[in-house]
Amino acid sequence: MIYLDNAATSYPKPNIVYETMMKAMKEYGANPGRSGHKLALEAGRGIFETRELLSKLFNIDNPMNIVFTHNATDALNLGIKGLLKPGDHVITTSMEHNSVLRPLKALEKAGVETTIIQCSPTGEIDVADIEKSIKDDTRLIVTTHASNLTGTIYPIREIGEIAKKYGIVYMVDAAQSAGVYDIDVQEMNIDMLAFPGHKGLLGPQGTGGLYIREGLDLHQLKEGGTGSKSNLLTQPDFLPDKFESGTPNTPGIIGLGAGIKYILERGIEDIRNHEKELTKYFIEELKKIQEVKLYGPCNVEKQAAVVSINIGDEDSSEVSYILDNVFNIAVRPGLHCAPLAHKTIGAYEQGTIRFSMGVFNTFNDIEKAVEAVRKISEEI
Amino acid sequence: MIYLDNAATSYPKPNIVYETMMKAMKEYGANPGRSGHKLALEAGRGIFETRELLSKLFNIDNPMNIVFTHNATDALNLGIKGLLKPGDHVITTSMEHNSVLRPLKALEKAGVETTIIQCSPTGEIDVADIEKSIKDDTRLIVTTHASNLTGTIYPIREIGEIAKKYGIVYMVDAAQSAGVYDIDVQEMNIDMLAFPGHKGLLGPQGTGGLYIREGLDLHQLKEGGTGSKSNLLTQPDFLPDKFESGTPNTPGIIGLGAGIKYILERGIEDIRNHEKELTKYFIEELKKIQEVKLYGPCNVEKQAAVVSINIGDEDSSEVSYILDNVFNIAVRPGLHCAPLAHKTIGAYEQGTIRFSMGVFNTFNDIEKAVEAVRKISEEI
Repeated sequence: MIYLDNAATSYPKPNIVYETMMKAMKEYGANPGRSGHKLALEAGRGIFETRELLSKLFNIDNPMNIVFTHNATDALNLGIKGLLKPGDHVITTSMEHNSVLRPLKALEKAGVETTIIQCSPTGEIDVADIEKSIKDDTRLIVTTHASNLTGTIYPIREIGEIAKKYGIVYMVDAAQSAGVYDIDVQEMNIDMLAFPGHKGLLGPQGTGGLYIREGLDLHQLKEGGTGSKSNLLTQPDFLPDKFESGTPNTPGIIGLGAGIKYILERGIEDIRNHEKELTKYFIEELKKIQEVKLYGPCNVEKQAAVVSINIGDEDSSEVSYILDNVFNIAVRPGLHCAPLAHKTIGAYEQGTIRFSMGVFNTFNDIEKAVEAVRKISEEI
Repeated sequence: MIYLDNAATSYPKPNIVYETMMKAMKEYGANPGRSGHKLALEAGRGIFETRELLSKLFNIDNPMNIVFTHNATDALNLGIKGLLKPGDHVITTSMEHNSVLRPLKALEKAGVETTIIQCSPTGEIDVADIEKSIKDDTRLIVTTHASNLTGTIYPIREIGEIAKKYGIVYMVDAAQSAGVYDIDVQEMNIDMLAFPGHKGLLGPQGTGGLYIREGLDLHQLKEGGTGSKSNLLTQPDFLPDKFESGTPNTPGIIGLGAGIKYILERGIEDIRNHEKELTKYFIEELKKIQEVKLYGPCNVEKQAAVVSINIGDEDSSEVSYILDNVFNIAVRPGLHCAPLAHKTIGAYEQGTIRFSMGVFNTFNDIEKAVEAVRKISEEI
């Protein structure tokens, strides 16, 4: 199987991730932050180490400002709903995932107003449009760092500057970029950074997190045991406990730490360059096939390792089915949980066939994918 | 290390749990419910199998009425906050965990009223007190099945009958009972069942769930991509997608399935009897040590495999530290995220030393624990 569905989850993970998780489960599978015995302390240390590694990767001063969540969606909900109040205004883009758009849509009923900036047919944004949309009650700007549909990369540094200039909170959805593209929350003026653990960060599913800038006051969405201030019937008000109720995904978080260590040791630039080369080659080869419709910037300086295509007017699910069953190539078809993005690029009815490359893909994988697309194109 | 902290998380897990998780991660580590390729379908099947196994264990008709969550706390928040509206009245007990009490406390600000039934000093409840507390606007009764502090078992069948009689929703927190005590949601009139995956069900941390009775309408607490109805900016309204946004903890859920298979194959009664015998022996031996204060019913017909004690007026943390460092025995000291329960049993200032037995503990473990308590008692 040639796996080209890394935008859904990276696969495989580095071996050290599997090994570290097994070790955590078999040798110190206790509940961290509750008891004080050796196994619980070791589990707690493992989780703290992952906080430190994330802090290093994203240039976060205080590891306690990272909250572990179930996934990036959980983190986005916490950031969006924990911050916004009735009467607040939010600015976002037409290229967002449903994990941003659906919470915002739900908040409309509570009196939160959203402006959705229309992106270009390649998914690109004019930053001036964001600035023009700012109103007195604009509380939040939330954008993705890279589109899960077209790979289009957003100028988060520029957007962060605008947000800072107007004193607006800036939240970045790093679902498709964390672990591959440079993210510096301080330099880039990012107030909240939501990330999945199981994509570019190479950790297991069941992990994700939210960085919250020091001093930014969010309301928690759930309460429960935190192993701290157990005498209180109210939630502790310090991070990360305020937002981390109940038993964490200890082996998952420790496995995520192993994934980040792998990235730091290999070098994020090396990973990014590898993915860029694969993507560049893939786009160039696909351009030679007449029947292929390519979406997005088609330029690896503006695009992460995500390539959406269609073959003529063929149904994207049908093509993906053939890729899987005849060519043993795993991709994702249809609407990629981003309906407005599909409308933006003109692929709402047909959906797209999405190829997404990861750190362990090879040129040989890409050659086979090109060959498969060529053969299918000839058949139709 | 003798591990007697199974009420925090069970450890170790059956080997098949580790093996199944590794297989899921290495052989089909894809994202379920998104793409249609072989690996994604296999991951999806694995998750569905766990739904089926849980349905078998709890006598749930439709596996789709089970929602996977991050942990039991997440499930309790969803059930409580998804159901209750301003003006609603809730009945609960003084023996609840903070994962029940803190969400209820938070809802007070939104106009939800809570009646907390005072339990006896052994943590036992008079069911008549529940019936007497019912008012016209009582919407929910929520109780634990077994106390995490004293092990006290609650008569959930009787409470379920009362709830049914008055048309009130009954929610059970099965954090300390699922996988060891019989739970039949239909016979017992349980409308919502919150459970952790990583305690008696022998799955990994990062798993939990909520059973929601067919037709019971809850509001979702978060929205996001569900891999279904991707064209909509609103959350799908069917289960489980309505409450399962974002990538699930696939290897965790599949590992949980392996844990449940282990339970079903060995027999839940066999596991329960083993834990009861250990607990009975432990209580009997501890009673012989004069300095030991025992909490709870001290009767394994009324108590799960959780035994809280103190030694004279010694600080519970100090004793637990000695148990860990001198005797290599892992227990949990202090307040067990259940402040009202500590007040109920009269151990609020001192906390308790909690021993909690699991399926893999042996009589030898218990003998060593008794011996350690005896030696510490002699020293003080």
